[in-house]
Amino acid sequence: MKLCMIGNRGGHDKHVWDALPHLPHVQVVGIAAGAPEDDVTPWLRRCDALGFTPEVFDDYRQMLDRLQPDIVTVCGPFELHAEMSVEALRRGIHVFCEKPVALTFEQLAQVHDVYAEAKTQFPGLHLATIMNLRYDPAFYTAWRAVRDGAIGTVRLINAQKSYRLGRRDAYYRDRATYGGTIPWIGVHAFDWIAWFSAQTFTSVYAAHSTQYNQDNGDMEVSALCHFTLTGEVFASASLDYLRPPTSPTHGDDRVRVMGTDGAIEVRGGQAYLIDAKTEGEAALPVACDRQIFQDFVDHIEGKTTALLTADDVFAVTEACLLARQSADEGRMMSFAS
Amino acid sequence: MKLCMIGNRGGHDKHVWDALPHLPHVQVVGIAAGAPEDDVTPWLRRCDALGFTPEVFDDYRQMLDRLQPDIVTVCGPFELHAEMSVEALRRGIHVFCEKPVALTFEQLAQVHDVYAEAKTQFPGLHLATIMNLRYDPAFYTAWRAVRDGAIGTVRLINAQKSYRLGRRDAYYRDRATYGGTIPWIGVHAFDWIAWFSAQTFTSVYAAHSTQYNQDNGDMEVSALCHFTLTGEVFASASLDYLRPPTSPTHGDDRVRVMGTDGAIEVRGGQAYLIDAKTEGEAALPVACDRQIFQDFVDHIEGKTTALLTADDVFAVTEACLLARQSADEGRMMSFAS
Repeated sequence: MKLCMIGNRGGHDKHVWDALPHLPHVQVVGIAAGAPEDDVTPWLRRCDALGFTPEVFDDYRQMLDRLQPDIVTVCGPFELHAEMSVEALRRGIHVFCEKPVALTFEQLAQVHDVYAEAKTQFPGLHLATIMNLRYDPAFYTAWRAVRDGAIGTVRLINAQKSYRLGRRDAYYRDRATYGGTIPWIGVHAFDWIAWFSAQTFTSVYAAHSTQYNQDNGDMEVSALCHFTLTGEVFASASLDYLRPPTSPTHGDDRVRVMGTDGAIEVRGGQAYLIDAKTEGEAALPVACDRQIFQDFVDHIEGKTTALLTADDVFAVTEACLLARQSADEGRMMSFAS
Repeated sequence: MKLCMIGNRGGHDKHVWDALPHLPHVQVVGIAAGAPEDDVTPWLRRCDALGFTPEVFDDYRQMLDRLQPDIVTVCGPFELHAEMSVEALRRGIHVFCEKPVALTFEQLAQVHDVYAEAKTQFPGLHLATIMNLRYDPAFYTAWRAVRDGAIGTVRLINAQKSYRLGRRDAYYRDRATYGGTIPWIGVHAFDWIAWFSAQTFTSVYAAHSTQYNQDNGDMEVSALCHFTLTGEVFASASLDYLRPPTSPTHGDDRVRVMGTDGAIEVRGGQAYLIDAKTEGEAALPVACDRQIFQDFVDHIEGKTTALLTADDVFAVTEACLLARQSADEGRMMSFAS
């Protein structure tokens, strides 16, 4: 299989590089910078180490046309995710894109419509974003336990993403190029909410603030989102960049899923079950035998159904954009779908 | 000081009985059932053990008029808290009331106005509700650390009240006599939010559900509230009665307070500090040298300023009622004050 890569922003192309040694039939044949100022040298070094000799392009469209890859990874400037994905999907190329796939409702509608249209011509066409935390051992273990009925019916979810701010590239300071903290961080939390509940979002109320953002322009450093899902399931997502710089890990990712028969919690990379049979809480042995990019390739090849589908991408991206709008406008927003 | 007690519902009169051995100058002189069906026998036994020989009344108003107590505790039917408090305040009697002090906006306005009016005649008049968790060692320790600047400026609060459902008296099944889960459980979480943030509520969006309430009528067993406070501080309160019946404790009370310089968390009766100086999280030694009813009496006597003021009672009760209305009507509510 031929793989082309566009852009290397966001840091999540890591998941592709991690998988490639285990996918000998997937070859990196082309690389294009996402923007003229982006440096592809580190990628060429990685390719060299893996025995690939990709062609380097200035224009990613030329790359897609000339090399006709099976798969393209899209990690360009955030505001170009949608455009780059659309260009690939139109050509029948499977897309593995940094999240979120769109920063505006118009972009989201375009990706959605182009994907639906392209599927009529290329029925197996796949689109996923790098919502890698589904493949985190603790979250995956927790999700499997919930899916297997460990806590009964899910009623309430509390999710947390707490990050160190650190030094960030200039494009994080501008809403037009960053998209906002609700889409950028929240996407993972919203994905857990949809995934663990197996319900559909119906409304969201959210708030965000740029106060104390240490001269990072438009960048919000605290946010809180309140979702209602079908079945009267409620979910909160608390998002911040306030974690002390000396914290031992970048993110303090947590979720608490409360069901009719107990609760599952993920915190500190562990998963805990609280049910009628446990005294206090029981730590579950955590593991995940799937890797996000391998899962993507296996799905394309018909070997499995990936954890992440294009429908998940659309639902969670809509959640990002509606939550951001709610926070901007200070009012509750209903989901269209 | 003469103490009269009205009603023994809710179980929180416990805090009065706990304090009385340490307050030899406070004497229980009168007892009135909150409702004809309530049994005061257990109280008489407690009085006997403490050497009190209170008079027992059918009509609490007669008790107040005849005995002219300094203090009255109000633990009557929830829907009579406001009326009973108002009758006492009008007579210049200090009121220590089960929370929340009102189940409707009309009741709250009446308590507020009568208290304000009575204060002109009895300047030291005190009103508090039994928001006992301020005096819990872990929460009190966390609050002191926050107040002393341990985490900088508070930006985000996530509170949790998770209860076992258990068997409950019939009045929990009816909104008119119970008030709803948001007021009954939420009041504590909302109190933490106001107390830890030292900000003022500006708006709330909330949701609640009676699904899976095991035939408990109107009683909601899951709820989620989203507050915005002054200074763009945001706070969530997750409330449920879904904790497994076998859980080692009744409630799983938690709060996470995220500030500009770190976070404080309370869970499992412990308080944890995460700041730039700690590797991971540091458990704080927890203690509270104050007791809620003693603090109330000391405040009346001018020996201290109680942790809980009447203004706190009004602000948090308004939060309860507006959050419940938000959940009932599915829309964001703004605070009047």
